[in-house]
Amino acid sequence: VSTVPGFVAAGLHCGIKDSGAPDLALVATADGRPVPAAAVFTTNLAPAAPVQVSRAHLEATGGLASAVILNSGNANAATGQTGREHAEDMCALVADGLGCRPEEVLVCSTGLIGIPLAIGAVEAGVGPLLAARQPTGFPAAAVAMMTTDASPKEVLHRGDGFVVGGIAKGAAMLAPHMATMLAILTTDAEARPDELRAALLAAVADSFNALSIDGATSTNDTVIALAAGRAGPRPGLPLVMADACAELATLMADGAEGATKRARIRVLGAASADDARRAARKVAESQLVQCSLYGGDPYWGRIVSELGSAGVAFDPDRVSIAYGAVEVCRGGVDAGHDPAAALAALAGREVAITADLGLGGGAAVVTTTDLTPEYIAENMRTS
Amino acid sequence: VSTVPGFVAAGLHCGIKDSGAPDLALVATADGRPVPAAAVFTTNLAPAAPVQVSRAHLEATGGLASAVILNSGNANAATGQTGREHAEDMCALVADGLGCRPEEVLVCSTGLIGIPLAIGAVEAGVGPLLAARQPTGFPAAAVAMMTTDASPKEVLHRGDGFVVGGIAKGAAMLAPHMATMLAILTTDAEARPDELRAALLAAVADSFNALSIDGATSTNDTVIALAAGRAGPRPGLPLVMADACAELATLMADGAEGATKRARIRVLGAASADDARRAARKVAESQLVQCSLYGGDPYWGRIVSELGSAGVAFDPDRVSIAYGAVEVCRGGVDAGHDPAAALAALAGREVAITADLGLGGGAAVVTTTDLTPEYIAENMRTS
Repeated sequence: VSTVPGFVAAGLHCGIKDSGAPDLALVATADGRPVPAAAVFTTNLAPAAPVQVSRAHLEATGGLASAVILNSGNANAATGQTGREHAEDMCALVADGLGCRPEEVLVCSTGLIGIPLAIGAVEAGVGPLLAARQPTGFPAAAVAMMTTDASPKEVLHRGDGFVVGGIAKGAAMLAPHMATMLAILTTDAEARPDELRAALLAAVADSFNALSIDGATSTNDTVIALAAGRAGPRPGLPLVMADACAELATLMADGAEGATKRARIRVLGAASADDARRAARKVAESQLVQCSLYGGDPYWGRIVSELGSAGVAFDPDRVSIAYGAVEVCRGGVDAGHDPAAALAALAGREVAITADLGLGGGAAVVTTTDLTPEYIAENMRTS
Repeated sequence: VSTVPGFVAAGLHCGIKDSGAPDLALVATADGRPVPAAAVFTTNLAPAAPVQVSRAHLEATGGLASAVILNSGNANAATGQTGREHAEDMCALVADGLGCRPEEVLVCSTGLIGIPLAIGAVEAGVGPLLAARQPTGFPAAAVAMMTTDASPKEVLHRGDGFVVGGIAKGAAMLAPHMATMLAILTTDAEARPDELRAALLAAVADSFNALSIDGATSTNDTVIALAAGRAGPRPGLPLVMADACAELATLMADGAEGATKRARIRVLGAASADDARRAARKVAESQLVQCSLYGGDPYWGRIVSELGSAGVAFDPDRVSIAYGAVEVCRGGVDAGHDPAAALAALAGREVAITADLGLGGGAAVVTTTDLTPEYIAENMRTS
């Protein structure tokens, strides 16, 4: 089992979920003392209580944290002042147990919105959770973060003399800025809070923020990085952190609700990088393109239509589109390709779609999945 | 059968569709002479050939037209220069038959993108189509416009001393600016081209452009209005045209692919009318909200989340949400409502969702549908 020197973790069932599944998790420094910390939060203007509290705590400490407590089964969102008090309670209880200040504890929640948190169950669970913390506790923490995730998401990436570990959850409401997703990155490398923040922002931009399953930006999205420092300063940290986030994002796409395919939508030749990102997202979030992916149908007309309505510079006579290595559209019209080759390029679990706008040097990649009846079945009723 | 004085119409099978279903339609003035005409076209930057040709024709005549020829079964989009020549051919053949100029004929196509039009079949069909035109031909024309529409869409609205008739198609790729939709409005009222255009723009804004099923803005969207003038000037024309467009948009939502429910998303109290429109569209286009509609699930948390990520001014502590007359969220938290009443408000085929942002006087309504497995089944394969 993977460990990250300087950190402990734990996960257990405290009583939020009726199913009895694990629903409370902890990641903490081994000695309970604060270390440099950075976070990226949802851009949703209705942020959940734990997002509000974690953001305030990180500002109060100037980028230090000893622990993150997480619960699944309830988002503690749209819960008003009571919700904020519950989130503060969670931090205070952990701080008591670790011997740190409440502001040095961050909090994440995921689950249904608008329902009061079963705070009594959480309060009763914090003691056992703290008692269970250990260096090999990350898998248990990853399980306790899960909502509709089919499996826990945990990665460990090794750099030159250090490691970056990551645990995450995310199965729906997955869109840039950010998915309904939580991720905690830990490393034994040393980094100042500002260095850690810069590395995290770059890693998130190319991973979680380049993932769009259903265009929904949730109320609770949070990515937190903690650097324990035991391994000393390591110039490779940003790169390894980016790799860890990229793998977690891939795991999210592979485990997205109902998904049977993962597609990388690459836009090249856009007038700008921003145009490329917008165009790739428009294609990635298209219900009709996602339906075609599900059916393995090489109907590129929908891709042209989405590119043309993405709000970016576009010349239909210059666009070319390829499925894998099979060019299906050139100069805005059918490329005269082999239909069997196009079908074959869409047959696998992983699909690559490339659109070259032929206008400039802007490029971007967005990952998405197909839209399936199972996605609807999972989301048509919550109670 | 409804007629509009001054107009004739027809519809038949010419051979574009393998199924043998009608695929070629005509709406023309009874005497073949041009009358004031106005049109609204897709904002997609990859407009289909018929959109390019119709736009150019309308500019060349300064807003006059004798006829519209329409085909279904092929969008004549992403077909390059050949596609434009085919669209011009269609207009020229109709002009020959009517004795008007080619620029006085407009053309609309709907169907699959990226496939060359079977122009031979169309050319052979124009003669019989012209021969079949008659005042009672609108139902046949409405049938020949259909693609995946479950039923033809035809309306007739009576004003004070005049009528407005409308035929339309539209079942998917339905989003503002505009749906994959075609609509032809005819009236015996008299109007100058600029008056007709103003009336049409206003009518479209509150009907077709306030409809979003799947967020897709197609390559072929076209709404055309023709005013034969026999009834003389009628101040009530804009209002009756708006009513006709609203009914056609409602028919599109009711007949949208796989839909089992139609929902009116009303946003009140926004900081501006534009904010209200953007917020209503974000909720209407949400896959997760559409899944909840399908399940009849009163999970208002998804609505708060969409409002918070709509890119508009938003204060989560001020928002209230109602299903029908049942307020489910007040001040950003659960309103303590009767769950059975909320369920009942979502049980019917028509659902009303109101979100009051509590910030200002901006208001807007967008109509949408639920997202169902049948939508996926209809769109997963095109060939």
